[in-house]
Amino acid sequence: MALDVGGTRLKGGVYGTGGDELYTHAWITHRRGGPEAVVVAVLDVLDELRQHPAARAAESCGLAAPGIVDKVRGYALWSENLGWRDVPLRRLAEERTGLPVALGHDVRAGGLAEARLGAARGVDNALFVPIGTGIGAAIIADGHVVDGGGMAGELGHVDVGHDERCACGSRGCLEAIASASGIARRYALRSGSAVDGAAEVARRARSGDAVAIEVWDEAVDALAAALTTACALLAPQVIVLGGGLSQAGDQLVVPLEERLRARLTFHRRPRVVTAVLGDRAGCLGASLLARELLLDDGGARR
Amino acid sequence: MALDVGGTRLKGGVYGTGGDELYTHAWITHRRGGPEAVVVAVLDVLDELRQHPAARAAESCGLAAPGIVDKVRGYALWSENLGWRDVPLRRLAEERTGLPVALGHDVRAGGLAEARLGAARGVDNALFVPIGTGIGAAIIADGHVVDGGGMAGELGHVDVGHDERCACGSRGCLEAIASASGIARRYALRSGSAVDGAAEVARRARSGDAVAIEVWDEAVDALAAALTTACALLAPQVIVLGGGLSQAGDQLVVPLEERLRARLTFHRRPRVVTAVLGDRAGCLGASLLARELLLDDGGARR
Repeated sequence: MALDVGGTRLKGGVYGTGGDELYTHAWITHRRGGPEAVVVAVLDVLDELRQHPAARAAESCGLAAPGIVDKVRGYALWSENLGWRDVPLRRLAEERTGLPVALGHDVRAGGLAEARLGAARGVDNALFVPIGTGIGAAIIADGHVVDGGGMAGELGHVDVGHDERCACGSRGCLEAIASASGIARRYALRSGSAVDGAAEVARRARSGDAVAIEVWDEAVDALAAALTTACALLAPQVIVLGGGLSQAGDQLVVPLEERLRARLTFHRRPRVVTAVLGDRAGCLGASLLARELLLDDGGARR
Repeated sequence: MALDVGGTRLKGGVYGTGGDELYTHAWITHRRGGPEAVVVAVLDVLDELRQHPAARAAESCGLAAPGIVDKVRGYALWSENLGWRDVPLRRLAEERTGLPVALGHDVRAGGLAEARLGAARGVDNALFVPIGTGIGAAIIADGHVVDGGGMAGELGHVDVGHDERCACGSRGCLEAIASASGIARRYALRSGSAVDGAAEVARRARSGDAVAIEVWDEAVDALAAALTTACALLAPQVIVLGGGLSQAGDQLVVPLEERLRARLTFHRRPRVVTAVLGDRAGCLGASLLARELLLDDGGARR
């Protein structure tokens, strides 16, 4: 069984040994009660999932959490969204479910799922890049998802050479220009007209709104710059775009792939595609972590 | 036994099962005869090494080669320096030595050696950054050296935001500003006075030459920018500077670490140190690859 802990929803699932989906369900994440209440809610949901008939034969449990996750020690170290600090989530979940639990990071779990079951299937080197409020990345290198002590993959904070301040305290970060929230904020600021998210900016760009076209264009350029850097360092064969912004589809993928190709010289040229698992990626990835727990060769596990 | 194939020298060694150095020797790389002649010379040197009394009990052989190396298929795919294209070096070396041979990439072999035996010993996430004619990087992530299909680690081609053209055809590359040859070239151009390499620029900077100080300073800034990006993506705990430029020691390390720290915000803060294995790193790394061949768990090998 698996649970993807998000700031908006808790997405749970039960899977067969072959990976087949036996049951899924989502719950609202109530954050009003503060960090501790979210922990209690997560444990209650795990309990509910454990009691479901489909989970009767469950042998292990995977959990995906946001923020900074120490997968080795099993701690959710830090989450801005949930207010978590040093939550021993693996131990708590093991006590509540009576199952061995694997704790992973939501973006890296999603990347694992896209690599094993989704858009990056069959390649050893890939990037999974969810673009929403922020921009993250799961780095798949030589067939493994890079953990980096829980801190790898901060693509959103690659300096793409602009002067706008980022929430992280730095300047030039990709995220300030090209995240869904960055796009909406910059459009509102420049046009003087508030919008309901980046999807609305995309729609306006399609219907010829000059400011929307400009803001979208700058976002695509910034993404191309940051991904060029990632290509130099990691040589991905596929770049999988996920998160809300990826729903723009070709409006994002086509110009991004074109500008990326224009920038690359000696590099390996990756395909740019959209994710195929959508918001199931995190939970599916957590289920893969759960399954890895049951493998015999613990030593080879990453 | 192990051999590090360089554009200037072939560095060979024989090692005990505990990694102890039994014998080392270096040969000049004669490139005048063209790519094929270098292959013949490499095989002759392997033969010579194999005949040495210290190598009588040799059980495997490691080779480190420059350029693009396909370690899975055992090919030296491309080397600008040696003129190599698609050389089946592993098979040739196996035929000549009668030993199982592991073929690896020189920078990544050096990184492996610094990670296991040198300046990055004991950490799981590190960068080994040799700075010479160019700037490369071996990425150590979660304890493994990232191969990326033979193409990972091109730190020299991270865009650090300048207008000078790079040999790769792009603009803005770190290497154009901060490689040893870039530093020498830019100093000569700006001062009108030719210098014998970056070490001479470093010396002039120490004795107050304003142009030298400026060129050195720009190189350090560019390195800090590119390494900040690497820190966002890979969260290294240690950055190991190698190659000729690292011989500048504190003149490079101190300002670089300072400027890197000034740029990092939420990131993990790496130590910046110089390599400890010097030009033995490649051969030592090749010996580690040779030793890995003898391990039982072939499946877990990377």
